[in-house]
Amino acid sequence: MKHSTFHFDLLATDGRARAGLLQTPHGEIPTPIFMPVGTQATVKAVSPRDLNDLGARIILANTYHLYLRPGDERIARLGGLHTFMGWDGPILTDSGGYQVFSLAQRRKIDADGVTFRSHIDGSEHRFTPEKSIAVQENLGADVIVCFDECAVPDDYDYNVAALARTHAWAERCKAAKSRSDQALFGIVQGGVFPDLREQSARFLTGVGFDGYAIGGLSVGETKDQMHQALEVVDPVLPTDQPRYLMGVGTPADLVECVARGVDMFDCVLPTRMARNGSALIRTVAPGRSSPARLNLRNARFADDPAPLEPGCTCYACTHFSRAYLRHLVMANEILGHQLVTLHNLHLMLTIAREIRAAILEGQFQAYRDAYWRMTNDQ
Amino acid sequence: MKHSTFHFDLLATDGRARAGLLQTPHGEIPTPIFMPVGTQATVKAVSPRDLNDLGARIILANTYHLYLRPGDERIARLGGLHTFMGWDGPILTDSGGYQVFSLAQRRKIDADGVTFRSHIDGSEHRFTPEKSIAVQENLGADVIVCFDECAVPDDYDYNVAALARTHAWAERCKAAKSRSDQALFGIVQGGVFPDLREQSARFLTGVGFDGYAIGGLSVGETKDQMHQALEVVDPVLPTDQPRYLMGVGTPADLVECVARGVDMFDCVLPTRMARNGSALIRTVAPGRSSPARLNLRNARFADDPAPLEPGCTCYACTHFSRAYLRHLVMANEILGHQLVTLHNLHLMLTIAREIRAAILEGQFQAYRDAYWRMTNDQ
Repeated sequence: MKHSTFHFDLLATDGRARAGLLQTPHGEIPTPIFMPVGTQATVKAVSPRDLNDLGARIILANTYHLYLRPGDERIARLGGLHTFMGWDGPILTDSGGYQVFSLAQRRKIDADGVTFRSHIDGSEHRFTPEKSIAVQENLGADVIVCFDECAVPDDYDYNVAALARTHAWAERCKAAKSRSDQALFGIVQGGVFPDLREQSARFLTGVGFDGYAIGGLSVGETKDQMHQALEVVDPVLPTDQPRYLMGVGTPADLVECVARGVDMFDCVLPTRMARNGSALIRTVAPGRSSPARLNLRNARFADDPAPLEPGCTCYACTHFSRAYLRHLVMANEILGHQLVTLHNLHLMLTIAREIRAAILEGQFQAYRDAYWRMTNDQ
Repeated sequence: MKHSTFHFDLLATDGRARAGLLQTPHGEIPTPIFMPVGTQATVKAVSPRDLNDLGARIILANTYHLYLRPGDERIARLGGLHTFMGWDGPILTDSGGYQVFSLAQRRKIDADGVTFRSHIDGSEHRFTPEKSIAVQENLGADVIVCFDECAVPDDYDYNVAALARTHAWAERCKAAKSRSDQALFGIVQGGVFPDLREQSARFLTGVGFDGYAIGGLSVGETKDQMHQALEVVDPVLPTDQPRYLMGVGTPADLVECVARGVDMFDCVLPTRMARNGSALIRTVAPGRSSPARLNLRNARFADDPAPLEPGCTCYACTHFSRAYLRHLVMANEILGHQLVTLHNLHLMLTIAREIRAAILEGQFQAYRDAYWRMTNDQ
C-alpha cells in the first residue's frame, strides 16, 4: 500500500517516544505533530496565512461536514480541498464515522453501513465504507482514514460486534481506495478493553495500511484507560509507520501520549476553548485532568496588563494584554476569538515542536519530568 | 487651537476636490482617507496587523461604547486606547453624541447635556460636553470631536433648537479640552436645511477648531440633500483645515463627496456588510443609490471559482473563490467574516488612494467620469 509520494522516516526514539518525518504530496510533516481541526474547510477564525505563521504543518478536515455542505463533488469540481480552502500544506480527512455515530437518534447501523439524517436539514443519507472513501477521494486530502464505528467505550459485547464491523469495513476501504496520491490509515478500535485493542491492532496490521489511527478514545474513558489502550497497541503496530491518536488532546495529553508511542494528534480543544473565551496555558493543576486555562470572563483579568502567558511568542501574547482580550470576549468581538485561537494553537504546536526536539536530543524524559515539575510548582 | 503636533497641508486641489496630509502624534494621514470603524476598540474581525497590511492610516473608535465597556478610566489606566488595542497609528473618537441620541426612548435631552440608559445593562448615565471631552481625553485618540446633537434631519424648528444646543456645547467642549496632544474638531449640523448648515459652518469657524466634522447626514436624507449640505458648507469652512463627513459612505459616496470638498470619511458599511455576507464591489447599478454588492448567500456563487472582484489585490481575492467564501458565509464560519471584511475595507481604502492620486495629478474629474462610466457599462 505504500506509495512513492508517502514515506515515514522514524528518526529517533527515546523510550517509547518517537520522532519522525512523514512525506506527503503537499509537504513534509515532522512528528510528533498537533493537527489543528478545520471541520468545515476552515480552522475556525484562522486564515491559511495565519496557520502558516503559526507553523502548522498539517490540518484536519471533516468528511461528514463537507459531504453535507458544500458537498464533496462540488469541492472536487473546484479543484479539491487544498485549492478550495487555500491551504497548500498536507490535509487529513476523517471518515465521517465519528460524526455519523454521534448523531445517536438520527442514525441506523447495519452490517453494510450507516443511514443517517443530516443535522442541517434532516435529509437522509447513507455512508458505507466505499462511500466514505469516494467522498474522501473527492475531497483529495493527503491522508484519509477508514470508515469505522466509534462505539461507546465501556460495553464489552457491543464493542466486540462493533469491532467486527470496523474490521470488515477496513478491508472494504482498502479495496475501494483508488487514488495513489492519498495515504490510507486504518483505525484501531476496541473501547476501553485491552484485549480488543490488541486484537484490533493485530488485525489491521495484518491487512496493512499506510499508518494507524487509534480511535474511540477521549470519549469519556479515564486517562488511565486511554493510556492502557495506547500501551497495548504500541508493541503491535509497525514501528516504521505513523500512529495517530484521534481527537486528543490537551498539552499534558501530548506529553503523556507521545510517551506511549503516538506520533500525530488532533483536537478541537484549542479552537473551541478559544471561542468560549478560555486561553490554554502550559500548566495543569496537580491532580486535575482538565487542561489549564485562563477563563477570560473572570473579572480578575479586567485590569491585567500581562499577556495570556508570559514568555509566549505568539501574536496575541506579544501585542495584547489579558485586559484587552477579556474586553473583546466580554463584548463578543470576533477579534477575541481570532486572537485567543492563535494563542491556543500556538501553544499546542509549540509543545509538539519542543517534544520533538527533546526526543531528537534524547532528552524526552527530562522534558516530560520538567513539564510535570512545572505543573506541581503551581 | 492649532498644536505643533498637528498640521494639515493642503497639497493640491482639483475643482473642489482636495488632497492633503494631516500630521498627528501617531503619524501622517494622507487625505482623502477612509477610516475603518473600530467601535469597541477593534475593527470587527480585523487585527491591527491586518489593518496595517491593508494600508489603513487612521481608525475610528466610539466613545459611547468604550465609556460603558470596558470604561474610559480603565483604558486610561492601561495606557490609553492605542496601547490597549495594539494600534500604533492615529485614532479618532466620536463624541458619543450620535449613539446617545440614537437611544431614542432611553435618553432625555436638556440644555446642559443628555441623560441616558446603557444598552448593555440599563444603568443610568449622563453626558455633558465636559464629560464627553473628559472621556475622550481618557481614551487619548489623536482626533476628538465636540459633543453635538444629531437631530432628525427634516424638522426645521427642531433643528433650530438642536443647533443652538450643538453650538453652545461646541464652545464648552473647546473650553473643556485640556490635552495638547489631541486635535478637536467641531461638528457642523443643521439637518437638510442649507441655511442652517451654512449658519453652523460660520458659527463653528468663528469659534475655531482644528478641523470640522459634518454630522447628521447619511441618516435618511436623499443623496441630493446630502450633496447640497456639503456644497453650502464647502466655501464657508477654512481651506487649510480638514473636513470630515461622519458616517459616510459607499464607494460612490467617496467619489461624490470628495468632489464636494470632503477629506475624511468613516462608515460601518464595509465591515457590517461583510458580516452579513455581502462583498462590496466598485460599481453601482445606474439609478441605484445603494452600494453595489455581491450577496454571497445567493446560490449562483456556489460553484463560482472567480474572486470577489477580478483584479482586486486583497488577500481574500488573491487566495479564495466566491464559492469558498459563500461556503464560509453559509456555514456561518468566522473566517468568512474576516475575509469579506478584509476585501470590503481594502476596496474603500484603495478607492480613497486612487482618488488622492488622481487629485495630485489633476485628473480627479477624469477619475470621477471613469468611475461612473464603468458603472453605466454594467
